[in-house]
Amino acid sequence: MSDNCVNGTDATKRWLSYRPEIKVLDCTIRDGGLMNNHLFSDEVTKAVYKSNVEGGVDYMEFGYMNSADMFSRDEYGPWKFCAEEDLRRIVGNNDTDLKISVMADAERCNLERDLLNRNDSVVDMIRVATYIHQLPEAIEMINLSHERGYETTINLMAVSTVPGSEVEAAIKLFADTPVDVVYLADSFGSMYSEQIHSYIKMYGDCLKGSGKELGMHAHNNQQLAYANTIECIIDGVNYLDASYAGLGRGAGNCALELLLGFLHNPKYHLRPLMECIRDHIAPMQEDLKWGFDIPYMLTGQMNQHPRAAIKFNESDDRGDYLKFFDMINDED
Amino acid sequence: MSDNCVNGTDATKRWLSYRPEIKVLDCTIRDGGLMNNHLFSDEVTKAVYKSNVEGGVDYMEFGYMNSADMFSRDEYGPWKFCAEEDLRRIVGNNDTDLKISVMADAERCNLERDLLNRNDSVVDMIRVATYIHQLPEAIEMINLSHERGYETTINLMAVSTVPGSEVEAAIKLFADTPVDVVYLADSFGSMYSEQIHSYIKMYGDCLKGSGKELGMHAHNNQQLAYANTIECIIDGVNYLDASYAGLGRGAGNCALELLLGFLHNPKYHLRPLMECIRDHIAPMQEDLKWGFDIPYMLTGQMNQHPRAAIKFNESDDRGDYLKFFDMINDED
Repeated sequence: MSDNCVNGTDATKRWLSYRPEIKVLDCTIRDGGLMNNHLFSDEVTKAVYKSNVEGGVDYMEFGYMNSADMFSRDEYGPWKFCAEEDLRRIVGNNDTDLKISVMADAERCNLERDLLNRNDSVVDMIRVATYIHQLPEAIEMINLSHERGYETTINLMAVSTVPGSEVEAAIKLFADTPVDVVYLADSFGSMYSEQIHSYIKMYGDCLKGSGKELGMHAHNNQQLAYANTIECIIDGVNYLDASYAGLGRGAGNCALELLLGFLHNPKYHLRPLMECIRDHIAPMQEDLKWGFDIPYMLTGQMNQHPRAAIKFNESDDRGDYLKFFDMINDED
Repeated sequence: MSDNCVNGTDATKRWLSYRPEIKVLDCTIRDGGLMNNHLFSDEVTKAVYKSNVEGGVDYMEFGYMNSADMFSRDEYGPWKFCAEEDLRRIVGNNDTDLKISVMADAERCNLERDLLNRNDSVVDMIRVATYIHQLPEAIEMINLSHERGYETTINLMAVSTVPGSEVEAAIKLFADTPVDVVYLADSFGSMYSEQIHSYIKMYGDCLKGSGKELGMHAHNNQQLAYANTIECIIDGVNYLDASYAGLGRGAGNCALELLLGFLHNPKYHLRPLMECIRDHIAPMQEDLKWGFDIPYMLTGQMNQHPRAAIKFNESDDRGDYLKFFDMINDED
């Protein structure tokens, strides 16, 4: 048998065992909320919460803590704002091992006003999302959230369109903040394994000695969300985003049922997810229509934001792959 | 910038360029035929053929050369048998750059009787599929096909359930045959990247010095068919199976549109596929229902043949993920 062969190697031992440091974050209600203006019913939201508790999931993300000055409560559901009373309506005092997270977009929040102290909230973690031109505000949001007692993460969005030197500089800035986890987010679902390895190596090098953990948030535009999440696990990434049946914007995310079935930590249980997907998630498919489809594949292959594909798939032209292909290839 | 970073490395040069040795084989009609007893209409079959010619695909596989003594022409369509006159009805004399292949299962064929000399046939390649207990017959089929002038490939099915020492022995036997390509087939869709790398290294080691090429045939039970095909490309595998919209048995195969979009060889064109999928493949989805679904995921995660999942998905219980989960977990 060769060294790297099917039996008896270190790799084999790794994949038969598990890494206890790995944390799984369910982003169904948050990322899926981008498909329905965050208008999930309490019944669905509670079912996902209950399934996460029973399934041993580590974090559940409910939505965004966006400012009600900027977005209307008439247009958007509660998970656009994640007010404390809305969260408590679902989780009570959350006397479980499941931690609660919310996402905060740079330039769309008023955390100074809206963020309670952690002692007064059921929220455990604030996850800041930032574009490259918003870094100073994002870092202030991290500092504020940390001061108020929260775990924090940060992700640099659309990183696949940012020059390498700027990515490196951004990640090094994060090293000097109190943030706990730096996420690689494949916003356009444009990356494949070698690019993932390359980014994770860069992120790791830039954070060396800082004690930060790495995270991965994948999109499924090219059917690579789960595969890329596995590649991150191999590279030592410990915070992993996934969602029920991959529910998320456009092509969706890494499917949680795939991920939990892969991780061998006995604390994770797949059975509750089967029930939740059958009763609550799959029935939304016909209306919300998330998941892999050729227009998302094409924007992913071209390293573009999926908004053109999302718009196309909301139109009567849905399914006319040739029309969409010609449309994006004709753009100057 | 670190060595393995986003800019300017050998890996980056590779993924921006292409490897001219790579051959793409479309197995839509062959593997998809397992979903409809090989009863594709001539219209659909011709449309796929035309699209492959225009798209620059290297090989198209039509079906099996099974023995009419063992299978009834009343039950099965023409692509269960691949008679010369049926092939010519679609491709004429095939005056194109697209090569034609058919698959031959060990113990289901009478090649001695049914296989013409290559000079008298439009078929270019015979692909033998064998289980571990059928090796001697499979090797005789390779020898016969080679003698009659064909390119040949061989794949060891269900390799994920065969002890490593037997896999090694089988691959070494193949090294001493005239076979051109040895395929890794992930029959159960149970493998992920580290296992793929491990198998490809083993296959490569066992074939060292033989001049054989390696091939990959992936299944999408865990949404990893395309990802695993990419990993094979990275490992130097040059023969890649894929199908339109992933059409194939159960969870299906690597989607050809994903693969052609990834390969940067300018001879490949995605546009004809968009038209063919829109007009001929997607309309079959509602009836044939191939593609990723949780029962296939569960058999993949458990390294089982997907037949239980296929049967379940053909029943009225389709969609009751919890029931299927309990069913396969309750088996002794």
